Amino acid sequence: MGSAVLLVKILDLIGTFVFAISGAALGVERDMDLFGVLVLAFVTAVAGGLARDELIGAIPPESIASWHNLALAVAAGLLVFRFSRLFYRLQHPVQFFDAAGLGVFAVAGTQKALDYGINWPMAAVLGMISGIGGGMVRDILTAQVPTVLRADIYAVAALAGALVVVVGSSAGLQPIFCALVGIALCVFLRLMALYRGWKLPVASSHPPGSS
Amino acid sequence: MGSAVLLVKILDLIGTFVFAISGAALGVERDMDLFGVLVLAFVTAVAGGLARDELIGAIPPESIASWHNLALAVAAGLLVFRFSRLFYRLQHPVQFFDAAGLGVFAVAGTQKALDYGINWPMAAVLGMISGIGGGMVRDILTAQVPTVLRADIYAVAALAGALVVVVGSSAGLQPIFCALVGIALCVFLRLMALYRGWKLPVASSHPPGSS
Amino acid sequence: MGSAVLLVKILDLIGTFVFAISGAALGVERDMDLFGVLVLAFVTAVAGGLARDELIGAIPPESIASWHNLALAVAAGLLVFRFSRLFYRLQHPVQFFDAAGLGVFAVAGTQKALDYGINWPMAAVLGMISGIGGGMVRDILTAQVPTVLRADIYAVAALAGALVVVVGSSAGLQPIFCALVGIALCVFLRLMALYRGWKLPVASSHPPGSS
Repeated sequence: MGSAVLLVKILDLIGTFVFAISGAALGVERDMDLFGVLVLAFVTAVAGGLARDELIGAIPPESIASWHNLALAVAAGLLVFRFSRLFYRLQHPVQFFDAAGLGVFAVAGTQKALDYGINWPMAAVLGMISGIGGGMVRDILTAQVPTVLRADIYAVAALAGALVVVVGSSAGLQPIFCALVGIALCVFLRLMALYRGWKLPVASSHPPGSS
Repeated sequence: MGSAVLLVKILDLIGTFVFAISGAALGVERDMDLFGVLVLAFVTAVAGGLARDELIGAIPPESIASWHNLALAVAAGLLVFRFSRLFYRLQHPVQFFDAAGLGVFAVAGTQKALDYGINWPMAAVLGMISGIGGGMVRDILTAQVPTVLRADIYAVAALAGALVVVVGSSAGLQPIFCALVGIALCVFLRLMALYRGWKLPVASSHPPGSS
Repeated sequence: MGSAVLLVKILDLIGTFVFAISGAALGVERDMDLFGVLVLAFVTAVAGGLARDELIGAIPPESIASWHNLALAVAAGLLVFRFSRLFYRLQHPVQFFDAAGLGVFAVAGTQKALDYGINWPMAAVLGMISGIGGGMVRDILTAQVPTVLRADIYAVAALAGALVVVVGSSAGLQPIFCALVGIALCVFLRLMALYRGWKLPVASSHPPGSS
């Protein structure tokens, strides 16, 4: 239990950093000023975890009660802002860091929800929300339809990672082992979606030519 | 009191189902994949109630503490996804289910807020929020200006239903009776707005030709 | 302490009124109906404070537990709706009231977070969130990229005002004095940004011609 809590904390800080990079990179792409970039980095980094903490009753949420997440997000934001040409040259910087953060947050969020006594189906959903929340808010703030709702595997990758944790926990496996498998599965599914075009089915409700 | 709680629960499940259908139908219209459709169904179904529960301090919210709302929303989403051509052929599927969910959630939300000791003007507002919250989040997630803020009677229909509950409760009437009248009034106002063009006044601030 | 609480309450009501005017004015500009204008006035007025209260654990939030904020927001909304031509003739009505509300909420939000025992860096961030939250939600609801994230000094003005309160509080200065200085600094920075074009640096990540 103690080690699960420590694991959640470490994963949370890693996820915070990579999501902050993802948010900051989008902010730079959209020509936001330094402060807008930092705000977007922070919000992207903590929104998913904040939503989870408010929903499970862990109030004030960890990212408010301590200043660690803020410091990490600001550091990541400054880094991206300063070396923006470098990040821009990487082909899909936003997408890559987004995939990594997705997996880490989904796994950490599921573990924390289980620690708070949430039943397993909702623990998996809360893990998914932890993972997709930051990206959703980031996309809403930049007035796009959130990635999660467009035709790529995204939320489903987060949910797959979350389910690994739920199943592993009920099977009594080591939390650290389940966490790593869950993250790997999530990142793998997301990258397959991005680079191999893996998709879920889409219902065809439209007569041809309509939009 | 016990019967009021049971009433809230039953209305909540009905509202969850119809709002999930409304969310899923919009997801299908926007060519979202299966998972996006399910996420939109769930979010549309629970966002209003989640907001209400967080605001009145019912934490963790009922739609997180139990898996019933999730199961219902997923079932509704699968139904719409599978029979999307059928739902598409109905002229205004999103709008109709939206009106029904609006009334049910407005009434159930008001009753729950009163049960938590909220004063009556805010109980009515919380009922309205329960009703309009899901649709607002659904519209934000698909990058539209929420229906509630455009020139049709929408939030006002929810508020009218909520006020029936508030007035009925202070007059000591049967909760089930007030609930049915409130729902009927809300749906009636919303359908009149949709099909008869009932409107509230709009201020004219523009010189002609501006936007 | 007692006087700090009273100060927060008074500032909160003032901020509620001016932010409600800002929200209502945007609603009128967008041709919303009367109810949409009132909803936008209320949401703009209370969203920042609601977010702060949920995050620091002041649940139910003050704007839900009492009906004062609702009454003030509705009054402001009706005023703007009735005299919309007057408000339209003022050159930047939304922007001016927005700047005033920003400063007042940033200062009051920081003070309240400190009163709840939040550490000082996060208290300043919570003050900033109190200030920028209402405007962000207002902009999201009208499907714009929030002002806070575009290339003007906005959030940074709120943060500057919040930091005055944090520094003044740790230096043992009078809360009322710090509040006034903080508000003045915030409004000054915001107006300089609007009328003198003060800006923060923007990273240049783009090859010419891309968007």
